[in-house]
Amino acid sequence: MQRRKFIQQTSTIGIIGIASQGFSIGKFVGTEEKVRCGFIGVGARGLSTLSLVLLRKDSVVTAICDIDPITTAKAVKAVTEAGYKSPTLYTDGEHAYKKLLDQKDIDVVFICTPWEWHTPMSVDAMKAGKAVACEVAGAMSIDECWQMVRTYEQTQTPFMIMENVCYRRDVMAVLNMVRQDVFGEMIHLEGGYQHDLREVKFNDGVNYYGGGVEFGDKGYSEAKWRTAHSLNRNGELYPTHGIGPVSSFININRGNRFEYLTSMASKARGLHKHITDHPKGGMNHANAKVDFKLGDVVTTNIKTANGESITLTHDTNLPRPYSLGFRVQGTKGIWMDVNKSMYIEGKSEPHRWESADAYSKTYDHPLWKKYENDASGAGHGGMDWFVLNAFIEAYKRKDPMPLDVYDHASWAVITCLSEQSISLGGEPQSFPDFTDGKWMSRKPVFALGEAY
Amino acid sequence: MQRRKFIQQTSTIGIIGIASQGFSIGKFVGTEEKVRCGFIGVGARGLSTLSLVLLRKDSVVTAICDIDPITTAKAVKAVTEAGYKSPTLYTDGEHAYKKLLDQKDIDVVFICTPWEWHTPMSVDAMKAGKAVACEVAGAMSIDECWQMVRTYEQTQTPFMIMENVCYRRDVMAVLNMVRQDVFGEMIHLEGGYQHDLREVKFNDGVNYYGGGVEFGDKGYSEAKWRTAHSLNRNGELYPTHGIGPVSSFININRGNRFEYLTSMASKARGLHKHITDHPKGGMNHANAKVDFKLGDVVTTNIKTANGESITLTHDTNLPRPYSLGFRVQGTKGIWMDVNKSMYIEGKSEPHRWESADAYSKTYDHPLWKKYENDASGAGHGGMDWFVLNAFIEAYKRKDPMPLDVYDHASWAVITCLSEQSISLGGEPQSFPDFTDGKWMSRKPVFALGEAY
Repeated sequence: MQRRKFIQQTSTIGIIGIASQGFSIGKFVGTEEKVRCGFIGVGARGLSTLSLVLLRKDSVVTAICDIDPITTAKAVKAVTEAGYKSPTLYTDGEHAYKKLLDQKDIDVVFICTPWEWHTPMSVDAMKAGKAVACEVAGAMSIDECWQMVRTYEQTQTPFMIMENVCYRRDVMAVLNMVRQDVFGEMIHLEGGYQHDLREVKFNDGVNYYGGGVEFGDKGYSEAKWRTAHSLNRNGELYPTHGIGPVSSFININRGNRFEYLTSMASKARGLHKHITDHPKGGMNHANAKVDFKLGDVVTTNIKTANGESITLTHDTNLPRPYSLGFRVQGTKGIWMDVNKSMYIEGKSEPHRWESADAYSKTYDHPLWKKYENDASGAGHGGMDWFVLNAFIEAYKRKDPMPLDVYDHASWAVITCLSEQSISLGGEPQSFPDFTDGKWMSRKPVFALGEAY
Repeated sequence: MQRRKFIQQTSTIGIIGIASQGFSIGKFVGTEEKVRCGFIGVGARGLSTLSLVLLRKDSVVTAICDIDPITTAKAVKAVTEAGYKSPTLYTDGEHAYKKLLDQKDIDVVFICTPWEWHTPMSVDAMKAGKAVACEVAGAMSIDECWQMVRTYEQTQTPFMIMENVCYRRDVMAVLNMVRQDVFGEMIHLEGGYQHDLREVKFNDGVNYYGGGVEFGDKGYSEAKWRTAHSLNRNGELYPTHGIGPVSSFININRGNRFEYLTSMASKARGLHKHITDHPKGGMNHANAKVDFKLGDVVTTNIKTANGESITLTHDTNLPRPYSLGFRVQGTKGIWMDVNKSMYIEGKSEPHRWESADAYSKTYDHPLWKKYENDASGAGHGGMDWFVLNAFIEAYKRKDPMPLDVYDHASWAVITCLSEQSISLGGEPQSFPDFTDGKWMSRKPVFALGEAY
């Protein structure tokens, strides 16, 4: 058994290359023990992830940090109602999380805080030797991305960016198709975040969603902090749900990399109109005078080292149905998300779309076949279960994280490069190579094994 | 009757502004006479337009110019079989069209030749006082666009760019919706030319489409000349089917204008693969050594003076179903072509797409309601009838052309600006203002009247 495991690990290391062969700080030592989890931020998103952790037999929640007493109480209740003892709490101000990081019986931390806290908290956690599961966001600066990378390289503390859409069932089926050459050589890809967030960006100060046009100090939950980014920044603010899956299709940082982007923003009308049209808003509401900088639709084009073009669309201020707008196009065919259709040369009736359903079933990813029942009922159609499972299982095995700090940096930096391009009238911006050239030799690891 | 007509014309002039109030050279004098048409180029496209002209009671074909005896014979046969006398022929070399322009009994010329001939032929025709109906294409140079504009301004000879997709039934219904404020203020638009042209770019040298991998001297019809553009140029080669309708939605050159664009091309794989995979091609075929410059997918983003963003996609080398990929998005809702769906705030079920069919029927454009029967059976689902009808009727009335030389120049120049942007690694390129500032005061005319 030990020998078999050794061979398996050696083989894995062979595949993934020297540069990311694991870590040495993690304190988890065997399958008998549970992974001891600390939560930094238990708002809407943190609470949801916490509830999934509580369902796992291999994990326990030992600490919670949040400055909001209401949400903290909800989290504690969730833990104790699951039959566990009450976790240690850290609630005393924005830097209370540093004390959590000193707590000894914590192996991993989940960072589910406002975007601007992801980097300092992740950096501090890695330095403290706590493996990091960090929620997704765009970066605040290019240097932030370098901080994450360099801290990881210095500490070798596991870091995973929790991009759940990489685990969406149809996305993983398409990944399976890409790997089995159904689409031929990859040529052009699209994705985005097209999600009407007006009732997330504004609420009544009490409830999570809508019911008013308040934000900032008078808002609640995401409206408290997320709206500030729409107020002050103009760019692709939330790139990862689109670019994460696309990256797995074309092996970004593992034989390929992003070279440059250009970005364009439309005018900004949606948020102002939402305020003035709202029954609790109107032209005389204080927020009707606010000038939101974020263009309603931001379009970003990325060129890769291997010659693929990628289009990302960020569209969160206007009335529209939710759609990530994926498109995967190669020399043999195309998949489009919005009409849930495919066209494969020689298989599809010439010049006609066909439903993607049959393909999605035929190429259902082995992980989804295996874990369908475990994932059912988990957030966002089950993908939240998969991203959590991947983090915990990779941690337990001391495997490299499937979505790592290089993925995080090259995805999150899109926000900064997009802002720069827009502010310069569309000038192209080069991507830093966060791998220092290692992208040329690194091999894919995402969703290749049977365990996660 | 005369008075009523005068009032109507005056009123029209009031709407369209001083700058484009018509022309003085046209020789057509009354509804009793027929519009005398000359055809320059009667290949696949010219022959199709000619057949529509022959169905009209108000037009007659008096001259044909083409250097291909086979297609010329087909055209002559079409004219005589329609009961008309045989037109005068001009077949003696590439400059024979100049002799056609000297022919006295020609009022208008249809230019349906390879792209690179559109400008010299249109310029010569305008100088000869023959009203021009010019087929669509991208420009060869920015100066070409200026030549068209300046020649029009000097001669005042009517010029219309024959962009048929502007008259597509669903496109005109959407235009109707835009004008009735169904979508609110325009924010973001998309369009393109996504059409698998591999069997147009390559054929067997005898038939129009496919059956071989020949082009240039060994190809036939479009493969003879169009493929050279894919061989030598990398850019948005065919912008008008996408940008024409979009321009009508946002009043380009009539209160709005294009400011700048950026363009990105994917790698070029599709045409080479088509040659090597083809039963009559293969790795040893001479054309397998040809290096095609045109990226398989070219994405272009355009920013307008009024703040809309536009994305155009050019995708003609890969297997895929035909789609122009329209998207019209405003502050109240969105239409998408690919899933034939709409979402209108307050009307659609929240967060759900609904079929665009009911909207298309409710907002069917008055011209389509009126002329549905006349258009049925005409090319491309009837829109070819409309674009021809618009040209002939505007000519007869001495009205300004609904799609004029400024539209042509600002659409066609996209090709050159796109090539420049791509060759400069995505740098933004500014649009010339072909209206010399008149866009600020010019008023919309497209599809506003009852006649065309």
